[in-house]
Amino acid sequence: MSQRIDALICPRWTIAVEPDIEVHEDLVVAIDKGRIVALLPRAEAMDRFEPDALHDRPDHVLLPGLVNVHTHAAMTLMRGYGDDMPLARWLEERIRPIELNLANPDFVADGTRLAVAEMLRAGTTCFADMYFFPDKVAEVATETGIRAAVGMIALDFPSPWADTPDEYISKGLDVHDTYRGAPLVSTFFAPHAPYSVSDATLQRIRQLADELEVPVQMHIHETANEVEDSVAEYGKRPLQRLDELGLLNSALIAVHATQLLGHEMERLGSAGSSIAHCPRSNLKLASGACPVAEALAAGINVGLGTDGAASNNRLDMWAEMEMAALLGKHVAHDAEAVPAPVVLEMATINGARALGLADEIGSLVAGKSADVICVELTAPTVRPVLDPLSQLVYCSGREHVTDVWVAGEHLLSAGRLTRMDIEVILERADQWGKRILDA
Amino acid sequence: MSQRIDALICPRWTIAVEPDIEVHEDLVVAIDKGRIVALLPRAEAMDRFEPDALHDRPDHVLLPGLVNVHTHAAMTLMRGYGDDMPLARWLEERIRPIELNLANPDFVADGTRLAVAEMLRAGTTCFADMYFFPDKVAEVATETGIRAAVGMIALDFPSPWADTPDEYISKGLDVHDTYRGAPLVSTFFAPHAPYSVSDATLQRIRQLADELEVPVQMHIHETANEVEDSVAEYGKRPLQRLDELGLLNSALIAVHATQLLGHEMERLGSAGSSIAHCPRSNLKLASGACPVAEALAAGINVGLGTDGAASNNRLDMWAEMEMAALLGKHVAHDAEAVPAPVVLEMATINGARALGLADEIGSLVAGKSADVICVELTAPTVRPVLDPLSQLVYCSGREHVTDVWVAGEHLLSAGRLTRMDIEVILERADQWGKRILDA
Repeated sequence: MSQRIDALICPRWTIAVEPDIEVHEDLVVAIDKGRIVALLPRAEAMDRFEPDALHDRPDHVLLPGLVNVHTHAAMTLMRGYGDDMPLARWLEERIRPIELNLANPDFVADGTRLAVAEMLRAGTTCFADMYFFPDKVAEVATETGIRAAVGMIALDFPSPWADTPDEYISKGLDVHDTYRGAPLVSTFFAPHAPYSVSDATLQRIRQLADELEVPVQMHIHETANEVEDSVAEYGKRPLQRLDELGLLNSALIAVHATQLLGHEMERLGSAGSSIAHCPRSNLKLASGACPVAEALAAGINVGLGTDGAASNNRLDMWAEMEMAALLGKHVAHDAEAVPAPVVLEMATINGARALGLADEIGSLVAGKSADVICVELTAPTVRPVLDPLSQLVYCSGREHVTDVWVAGEHLLSAGRLTRMDIEVILERADQWGKRILDA
Repeated sequence: MSQRIDALICPRWTIAVEPDIEVHEDLVVAIDKGRIVALLPRAEAMDRFEPDALHDRPDHVLLPGLVNVHTHAAMTLMRGYGDDMPLARWLEERIRPIELNLANPDFVADGTRLAVAEMLRAGTTCFADMYFFPDKVAEVATETGIRAAVGMIALDFPSPWADTPDEYISKGLDVHDTYRGAPLVSTFFAPHAPYSVSDATLQRIRQLADELEVPVQMHIHETANEVEDSVAEYGKRPLQRLDELGLLNSALIAVHATQLLGHEMERLGSAGSSIAHCPRSNLKLASGACPVAEALAAGINVGLGTDGAASNNRLDMWAEMEMAALLGKHVAHDAEAVPAPVVLEMATINGARALGLADEIGSLVAGKSADVICVELTAPTVRPVLDPLSQLVYCSGREHVTDVWVAGEHLLSAGRLTRMDIEVILERADQWGKRILDA
């Protein structure tokens, strides 16, 4: 007797990522109660299951949803505000003044909604956010159905969200408590950067992260200046200081990491740490480039992030994957470095690992949450299809994502958002845009 | 009394590129008999003209069509065949065997049709091609309505197109003669590379190019190996050798140019030469990166090219523009380098100049050919629109191109190709794909 299930997705090609990154034909995915029940040949599936919904995707690749390990979602509202400027000036002249004047809970909610719309349409099913008002980010994630890891941000200077390190941590812990056990929202500590958070605050965060078993994400070694300043102030590079504070462990996600020495990579690798590689943002701000091939060889878990839209300017994991592959070869002086399959792992399972969510997402494995996407390979730019995995990394794009499910809910269907009122979101975004230009 | 004209295009924003690269509102473009008649405010245009067609594009940017200064169009059929391999192995193990066995006039025609479909959909209105069977490329351009500069290829070794340097040149000149005075097809000499063409052939090409007043396009200083080999064989770097042969002049388009010394840039700049910058291909093959900011400062005219789809893998000038801006900053260690307006000039007027077509295309100026495109700025990823020019370079993409006119003919309308039978083209491309996989 056949088993009733919610849905069966029948693509032409399936890339499960685990147990292998190969392209399989005739492998369909059975989904029930938000979880993957099985991957099996179609004929077998039709025998075994009675699906409420049958999704035929005859020209599509089915793969795990993409995991964006580093963004500041609400900064979509500042997209294109301050291009072609170096990090310090960009931050001081453009971004900070807007954040101090305009960034309030509504700003963050509206900006995050715009970001979620952009990310879902592009096949991102989970994002890790670092911004003010993480309570609002968690609310918007819950409201829109996307999966979010929400950063408990901490800084030594005041912002509209909190005034003191203690207040940042306390308000962050409130968010953590509110979402404990929530199906789609997890949390992590997000001390901003070595230069903006004191030793005392970092020590407290390390203790709390140990107790709560959550990741710690931090901008680390983003620029050469940051490293030089630390040497001048502390007599040591930031990673050395963080190591002495006990932060180099498997909970750590070092964001950017464009300035890495060989022994630092060895240390991060043996500690089981992760890097959030944000190649487009690093290039746009001329910060440098993470040596990804070397980092992977040292055993570091490298995920991919878009960073915020004020320094990218798109929250597009396809663009990030392409850039990771292309730039990774350039930096390694080796065309074989950072090949397409590795890049797809970075954008899926490695991201899940970094966020402590590898048991739940990042690959198509029975028992994991049904966070899956379909990409259509019919446009001229992806033809002929000699290698579907190559098409995904090197020539398809966000516009070819047709379907997105998060925990089994069909959030994007035939390229349309099913749950978000996109017109209202865009109108509000445009209103914020006017206020930014008038500021 | 008002003047009857073919069409009036009324966008929200217009970027004419010349006389300035600013974004103008309320500037419409009048087109008649394939040419731009005037740019003027809408009310004035409605007084002065009686258009047969009125194209309202209320959420769009109008700009000149993009000029792809370097591609091997037919190589779309080999898209994704040989990723993640260095140049020499990629060429010898993957590309050459296919070219020797399969590349015939039908292969080139079908591959070029696929390329033209991809390029038109992405807003490219003119491409410069270097491949075997340039007669077929010219035929396909004429058949499809796109503008093409067709390379009279020359090599020292035989191919399915020709056996000897003399035969290459002679067959190339036949193509030149056939298309002399053609409205949409121009020609240029395309000696493949310093390492594959002898001094004698290069001297003959220089003389012929002088007489016919056509550009000379050549892969030059693509890799460090190429430069080292030249020093070993000739005792000089390739650019030095070409200079002694008289090739460094305003007709020259140096393709790739990832290995440039300061004095070489000064020399190219004072000679009035151009570079065809192909950043994505250079990274994918780990060849290096052209120092664009320095090259521009030296007075070199830098255009943008996609290279062929076997090493990119997309013929997408938006991806190339973004990469040029991002990589240009990285290479210069300067976030202010290669800003968005400069990149848009590279993709339009600089490309036109390189190809000797600046009187005809590359900017919206009365009297020039009506090669124009519209880009829609409504999707979440381009909102809010704080700066339309920033959106074009940093977050919009090929999928936002709605309309393309070449010489006044509406070849893409609401995202659909008007003149090409795309289903037939894709089917043929897939058939070639099968033959490549079976080879």
